[in-house]
Amino acid sequence: MLIVAERINATRKAIREALEKKDQQFFIQEAQKQEKAGAAFIDINAGTEATKEVDDLKWLVEVIQDEIGIPLCLDSANDLALEEALKVYHKREVMINSFTAEGNRIQALLPIVKKYNALVVGLAMGEGGIPQSVEDRMKLVDILVNAVDTYDIPHEHLFIDPLVVPIGTDQNQGKLFLETLHEIPKKYPGVRTICGLSNISFGMPNRRLINRAFLALSIGYGLHAAIIDPLDEKLMGILYASEALMGHDEFCMNYLSAFRSGCLNE
Amino acid sequence: MLIVAERINATRKAIREALEKKDQQFFIQEAQKQEKAGAAFIDINAGTEATKEVDDLKWLVEVIQDEIGIPLCLDSANDLALEEALKVYHKREVMINSFTAEGNRIQALLPIVKKYNALVVGLAMGEGGIPQSVEDRMKLVDILVNAVDTYDIPHEHLFIDPLVVPIGTDQNQGKLFLETLHEIPKKYPGVRTICGLSNISFGMPNRRLINRAFLALSIGYGLHAAIIDPLDEKLMGILYASEALMGHDEFCMNYLSAFRSGCLNE
Repeated sequence: MLIVAERINATRKAIREALEKKDQQFFIQEAQKQEKAGAAFIDINAGTEATKEVDDLKWLVEVIQDEIGIPLCLDSANDLALEEALKVYHKREVMINSFTAEGNRIQALLPIVKKYNALVVGLAMGEGGIPQSVEDRMKLVDILVNAVDTYDIPHEHLFIDPLVVPIGTDQNQGKLFLETLHEIPKKYPGVRTICGLSNISFGMPNRRLINRAFLALSIGYGLHAAIIDPLDEKLMGILYASEALMGHDEFCMNYLSAFRSGCLNE
Repeated sequence: MLIVAERINATRKAIREALEKKDQQFFIQEAQKQEKAGAAFIDINAGTEATKEVDDLKWLVEVIQDEIGIPLCLDSANDLALEEALKVYHKREVMINSFTAEGNRIQALLPIVKKYNALVVGLAMGEGGIPQSVEDRMKLVDILVNAVDTYDIPHEHLFIDPLVVPIGTDQNQGKLFLETLHEIPKKYPGVRTICGLSNISFGMPNRRLINRAFLALSIGYGLHAAIIDPLDEKLMGILYASEALMGHDEFCMNYLSAFRSGCLNE
């Protein structure tokens, strides 16, 4: 399970304020804490204000990249912001989050993905929004896979997010997501799946409990990568336990080492 | 998800002591608390000392049955104890836990199951123990299903426990269990699955965390009934959340009602 650490996201108030103050130490610590907690990528999202995003995303890359041993995931739908950030980014690996199954998004983002040999997240969302059946969502997956093929990007660089709709609005959304998740690597063996799961619990009480159960279920259905907060120890506990139970953790070493480091709550 | 409440089991010290003292109030309260927490059946296990089990199981049935609104699950491999307990049991529904895929167990137990029109738990265990592949475990499932057919017991009365072997001894046991779980109702649509899950974490630290993740995964793979402690609020929280996420909880009513009653921990 690849963990894409989600905390540096300017839709969060604390992050937005630190970004306004250009508080370098804050961002370095946020990134380092998440790396230590098991992240494989640090996601950075500089907000959606077009004028500021270009400068802020670039600034975050410059501040953070040399302070951690892992790569960044540049979280933006703005191709200009991505391109400027990538110009100053000098690590070997990078992930771009995200593009959709819409022609203009594909044409804007994928040349950049190809140019920088990046990993990329594709969302199962099209011009008509998020389809409400596994079959229709898979049609968008086909478009995403065809798109990377067109730009000669290897399937191994593509992570597809089947997209989560809250169960509070429709009780079938959890199952629909999980079934799509299961279908993707069956149809496209090299393609991996990713998900930002917390949206599933929107509008429900005790959201973190639902998110934990959903992470376990998603691991059971084959999720390859999760966009989560690795400082959430309860969530990480369920992650380590589920990975061990699915046989993904040789001799349960990761589980046992997380236990010994004191970050597993019973 | 049917909950078979496991607390009244004489392998637990507190239960053995209360049984020696013939403490009726203790057992009535244990049963009522578990019913209130969502149990569909109260499992009663009077230990394995052959001389005492016959009297003790019968005594437990007499003490408990009229104090609760739900049926009992008689937990014994001793056909004499079961038969004596069933003579005094007068509720409409009953579950018998359990028989194995061994000729002598089938011949001893299934006539009783038939006579009392009971539900019955069959364990995927044969003369050679617990097989180490899904395919071999399914061969024992075939024997269990053929056995109920022989005694003209409907498939709807059979719950199969694919049996859990600790992941601490073999990291593949979780996946093996889950895949067998998934296979059973695909091959035998009327047959349901059940599991006493806590053995999965034997020998590991923070067992209850592993048990919670395993319950979520098992619900994801289609488990119909679980032999658990319904007073374990963290476990029940994961159960309610997982059921809602799998679309088994209309309008998330059970989850929301558990939340409102204050028994969901975030």
